[in-house]
Amino acid sequence: MSNSFGRVLTVTTFGESHGPAIGCVIDGFPPGIEISAEEIRSELMRRATGQSRHTSQRREQEDVQILSGVFEGRTTGTPIALLIYNTDARSKDYSRIAAQFRPGHADYTYHHKYGLRDYRGGGRSSARETAMRVAAGALARKYLKDRLGVEVVGWLAQIGDQVCDERFDPAAIDSNPFFCPDPERVPELEDFMKRLWKSGDSVGALVKARATGVPVGLGAPVYAKLDGDLAAAMMSINAVKGVEIGAGFASVSQKGTEHRDEITPAGFESNHAGGVLGGISTGQPVDVAVAFKPTSSLRLPGRTVDVRGEPVEIITTGRHDPCVGIRAVPIVEAMLALTILDHYLLHRAQCGDVGPQEPRIPT
Amino acid sequence: MSNSFGRVLTVTTFGESHGPAIGCVIDGFPPGIEISAEEIRSELMRRATGQSRHTSQRREQEDVQILSGVFEGRTTGTPIALLIYNTDARSKDYSRIAAQFRPGHADYTYHHKYGLRDYRGGGRSSARETAMRVAAGALARKYLKDRLGVEVVGWLAQIGDQVCDERFDPAAIDSNPFFCPDPERVPELEDFMKRLWKSGDSVGALVKARATGVPVGLGAPVYAKLDGDLAAAMMSINAVKGVEIGAGFASVSQKGTEHRDEITPAGFESNHAGGVLGGISTGQPVDVAVAFKPTSSLRLPGRTVDVRGEPVEIITTGRHDPCVGIRAVPIVEAMLALTILDHYLLHRAQCGDVGPQEPRIPT
Amino acid sequence: MSNSFGRVLTVTTFGESHGPAIGCVIDGFPPGIEISAEEIRSELMRRATGQSRHTSQRREQEDVQILSGVFEGRTTGTPIALLIYNTDARSKDYSRIAAQFRPGHADYTYHHKYGLRDYRGGGRSSARETAMRVAAGALARKYLKDRLGVEVVGWLAQIGDQVCDERFDPAAIDSNPFFCPDPERVPELEDFMKRLWKSGDSVGALVKARATGVPVGLGAPVYAKLDGDLAAAMMSINAVKGVEIGAGFASVSQKGTEHRDEITPAGFESNHAGGVLGGISTGQPVDVAVAFKPTSSLRLPGRTVDVRGEPVEIITTGRHDPCVGIRAVPIVEAMLALTILDHYLLHRAQCGDVGPQEPRIPT
Amino acid sequence: MSNSFGRVLTVTTFGESHGPAIGCVIDGFPPGIEISAEEIRSELMRRATGQSRHTSQRREQEDVQILSGVFEGRTTGTPIALLIYNTDARSKDYSRIAAQFRPGHADYTYHHKYGLRDYRGGGRSSARETAMRVAAGALARKYLKDRLGVEVVGWLAQIGDQVCDERFDPAAIDSNPFFCPDPERVPELEDFMKRLWKSGDSVGALVKARATGVPVGLGAPVYAKLDGDLAAAMMSINAVKGVEIGAGFASVSQKGTEHRDEITPAGFESNHAGGVLGGISTGQPVDVAVAFKPTSSLRLPGRTVDVRGEPVEIITTGRHDPCVGIRAVPIVEAMLALTILDHYLLHRAQCGDVGPQEPRIPT
Repeated sequence: MSNSFGRVLTVTTFGESHGPAIGCVIDGFPPGIEISAEEIRSELMRRATGQSRHTSQRREQEDVQILSGVFEGRTTGTPIALLIYNTDARSKDYSRIAAQFRPGHADYTYHHKYGLRDYRGGGRSSARETAMRVAAGALARKYLKDRLGVEVVGWLAQIGDQVCDERFDPAAIDSNPFFCPDPERVPELEDFMKRLWKSGDSVGALVKARATGVPVGLGAPVYAKLDGDLAAAMMSINAVKGVEIGAGFASVSQKGTEHRDEITPAGFESNHAGGVLGGISTGQPVDVAVAFKPTSSLRLPGRTVDVRGEPVEIITTGRHDPCVGIRAVPIVEAMLALTILDHYLLHRAQCGDVGPQEPRIPT
Repeated sequence: MSNSFGRVLTVTTFGESHGPAIGCVIDGFPPGIEISAEEIRSELMRRATGQSRHTSQRREQEDVQILSGVFEGRTTGTPIALLIYNTDARSKDYSRIAAQFRPGHADYTYHHKYGLRDYRGGGRSSARETAMRVAAGALARKYLKDRLGVEVVGWLAQIGDQVCDERFDPAAIDSNPFFCPDPERVPELEDFMKRLWKSGDSVGALVKARATGVPVGLGAPVYAKLDGDLAAAMMSINAVKGVEIGAGFASVSQKGTEHRDEITPAGFESNHAGGVLGGISTGQPVDVAVAFKPTSSLRLPGRTVDVRGEPVEIITTGRHDPCVGIRAVPIVEAMLALTILDHYLLHRAQCGDVGPQEPRIPT
Repeated sequence: MSNSFGRVLTVTTFGESHGPAIGCVIDGFPPGIEISAEEIRSELMRRATGQSRHTSQRREQEDVQILSGVFEGRTTGTPIALLIYNTDARSKDYSRIAAQFRPGHADYTYHHKYGLRDYRGGGRSSARETAMRVAAGALARKYLKDRLGVEVVGWLAQIGDQVCDERFDPAAIDSNPFFCPDPERVPELEDFMKRLWKSGDSVGALVKARATGVPVGLGAPVYAKLDGDLAAAMMSINAVKGVEIGAGFASVSQKGTEHRDEITPAGFESNHAGGVLGGISTGQPVDVAVAFKPTSSLRLPGRTVDVRGEPVEIITTGRHDPCVGIRAVPIVEAMLALTILDHYLLHRAQCGDVGPQEPRIPT
Repeated sequence: MSNSFGRVLTVTTFGESHGPAIGCVIDGFPPGIEISAEEIRSELMRRATGQSRHTSQRREQEDVQILSGVFEGRTTGTPIALLIYNTDARSKDYSRIAAQFRPGHADYTYHHKYGLRDYRGGGRSSARETAMRVAAGALARKYLKDRLGVEVVGWLAQIGDQVCDERFDPAAIDSNPFFCPDPERVPELEDFMKRLWKSGDSVGALVKARATGVPVGLGAPVYAKLDGDLAAAMMSINAVKGVEIGAGFASVSQKGTEHRDEITPAGFESNHAGGVLGGISTGQPVDVAVAFKPTSSLRLPGRTVDVRGEPVEIITTGRHDPCVGIRAVPIVEAMLALTILDHYLLHRAQCGDVGPQEPRIPT
């Protein structure tokens, strides 16, 4: 169960960074949806490394294969298996760290949990796994858009101390390597990243995403709340340390009169709720914000211990992103889309399809 | 599944605010643990309403009954059912809002999801449900403390714009009605709450919690991450809008050299990770922070619509907390304890008991 | 998870035979269904003990309480908790067997699994738990009948060597204490049971059940097969040792030409499949047969050991059924109904509601 | 969830008979176990087709790849993905049945559930899927044998009207193509199969399996019973119509004094229980019997309808087993092994490792 996500639409991923392949199995996806490997690949390329100087120079072709669950171009209702062989894994880069625990990495915890670990490129703890989330998310996004009119968009909101979304032009997001919605900020970000790269250090990032067109009624009380499942989905992404829905931590210092979203016959007057009340979607946009920590793979030396407990100084070579948050935008989108589709299907199980329920007016 | 929490230790809760009773079923709890209704009740009273002027004046006796799973004072391994009859529910208070949607409440979403709702006191969406989390958490905390030496403590870190934990005296937390760790701040908080009450408005709160003594190795890669499950656990609490692990959103503007927790033979040098790396516990304290929105039940009028879509002005009478975050401290503790125990049991399934795994040193 | 049943419609039961109460939580049930405690109770009384000389003389009133999930007589979509206090439990009857393992009972296995056991009346392993299955089943049956036109009927097919259903009059089933569909066999069964009672021995039974009106398409490939889930459902009933779907074990010696159910424009020509092909319902009646072992609680002495491993002779006093299979008929019906409703809801999640799917004809 | 099996050790399979590949993901397997692709392949070859004249002539090389979860020859605790490319699929054989429903097959139900189907070789409903169960079972069997001393053996007990296990020589089972434990019966079975082949018809089979060395205490009350999960596991195998544990359907006509397994200081005197009491293992051998229906793919013509509902006569060409039960022996073994290992791990979660629990003697 530990490598599966979702309640009725489940995605199980497998694979290590430098193993033969990564893949996933998508179970419970509705039948009859047109999908091609090319569509999935185009989504994967948005996340892919090697796209700019600002991300890891590992270059995967992301030649995704559909192994099952699709027949004559349409989903059949049986499990959809996707596979990508790892082609540009350079394991020799990592031989030095086999017996050392990189600070801020899962080396230490995997070693102590399992007694052994696949140290090549971070093994299972590598962000390589997230490619399969994006692949599965491509199917979810297609269903949501075509069948329900739900659209999901993510963007880089902040990198280090650089806020990026004070102006918001959705058309700009995919036209720059930062997923930055403010095209005027791009040159500054280029500059910022160059200086960062030179320094050898890394920074964190804030990624935001929004789903529009979400029908009212998705989610469930108490433990299968839409926002609860979103929090788990986002926190399950590598390097994430915080999740907000709607007003998030700003709610702490808000007054009730300020936070509550008043309702008029024309709809809600504001959206501090982030599209979720009592764990159930309101029909407003679902808004999430996700905090990514700075990459811990640094060429600046750090103190650590080896597997014998002896102190060592460590420098991480290999190819790494100075800011993992940049490439995380499509991953956040994918997890948002998968969670919403899962809850749409779960809602359909209990309540039938969405739509105007017969109102019942107490007398 | 929507009302169950946990992977191998599952807690299923039921009950509405003004229904006959609330209760829970705890399944998978280890056998042989001594527990009494009185122990659970004493934990419940920490969360209980009516304890001070600063929380709702509903006074429940919290006379919890153990209906099953305990024999001669010890758990038997079979499901433990706990039940509390609602004794101080005043349903007449709520009759006016039966046909109206209170802004910031689940009224609107429940109505549209299910086509009908139990409007008395918020029904299932009421914080009344959280009493059962605290009850189940009492068992988890007992096991963790007695068998593993894990202790869980939560506190109020901020209420509105009032930061409460700049000084931190753990002994002070349970000696004031705010769960405030800084005893000198208590008079100011009293004052703050009095003014708030007079104003008719409400505020949000920041609650923090820490688990110490957590063994290294709890958690799992990818989707059953300890921090992922913690995020879901916290976001499932009523009124929560944000969750952080360790450095949380501060990670965004941190440098990698600052964030990464260096390791020496004496242990980690810092804990920005919040005790979790790669989804697995490091052995350091597990640190979470949780943002609560301000209560939306206000006696200050607000605009909304009724079930026919007609605009109305709404005033919420009934008994409500001006800051739900205060009473949430034991709930956050309970969810932290339950998540850690669940992951301890899950770890035991795959890897056997915790403890020094035979190290395997690559050569 | 061990005490929960179902995939999207989950039933979690709790309670011991001689504990304070038994109960269940039904999660995922559709909203808007009318249900009353009296309706559930009338179903419970069919299963209840004390109804005839042929079953245990324990007399429970089965005063079931609906604690949650129902508001103004209709289900709300939130978890439905049902509770029955145990009123006629005579624990003193069982004191002698506290330290002994009754052959054929769960005493031995519970003791060795958990290190302790609630020995009063079999504790959790008692058939008392099955009352809650019947209670939950009452809701499932109501939904199936009212919304889908599915009807479930069970009967006693054989008791010991007495075959009971060579003639089949469905109207007779509920008019005799044996759930026997052949009214002419009833006097012989009375006689058979009298002799059995005198002898102090017990016998097994064969119970059959059929669901009619099941739409085509319920079930799923491979591991969530409708028949796979039915097998688990039936085998989870106390004392069950075998389950058949359709032709069952007779399939072993059938020829393919005999077993396969040919299809004509008017429908299937036979139903050896028992209404399930490839794990998915065909639209024909779903047929199950369930083998119950003879009760092991006998007043005839048997050899066993005590908890110290010392040999002892055991005689089980207390009140017991000489044939548990008789009372099991409503339980089998309940498990059949719950499984079908669960799969209907699961189907609705993935494929939308049942009904004529747009056919897609390969060219 | 529909394509996953297991509670804490989950196996998710994917793939169609004539798609590019079949595979599985094994999640929750303990770390540190030595395993090689060659070991898995040797188990697969026992199930493989093309081994004798009596089974389908499809010849797969079963070149299984380990894609993840194994590092330097040992399991790492992360998900183990196994993959086999389909090399000998001849899709053209099936073109005629694309628009017709073969009686006794899942064609009809898949079509009506999903609105479309992959008709090549039965698609997902083909027994090809079971290869992955055997592959996953190979890992389970290795763990059980090496760590717990549990051994699993299956055999053909009956084929058509031919009983095969009146004499039982375990050494003979793997030395003949029938998995028959009575070597003297083999020539007769050869003869029987030859005549069957000539006739164009098929027969059913009875497969039995036994696990020895199972520790006492595996399983759980009520819905996660060891026998309940075994029933689901067996019924999930293609073509299975019945499952028995221990005495099975013979229990119906047994007396209680005959069925109950008396206990002496030397152990149980019999094993009608089949190694399970109250859903929990007794420490005796776990005995299951599984009924397989005759193959429905026959070259003898049968009546059916096409997707337009028009009557047609159908003849199934392609390569098919005249008795699927023969090849099912390793599949039954695999499902038995997987279920026992899953329950061993689940037991370890709640109760810690197996072994002498501290006895608690009531006074």
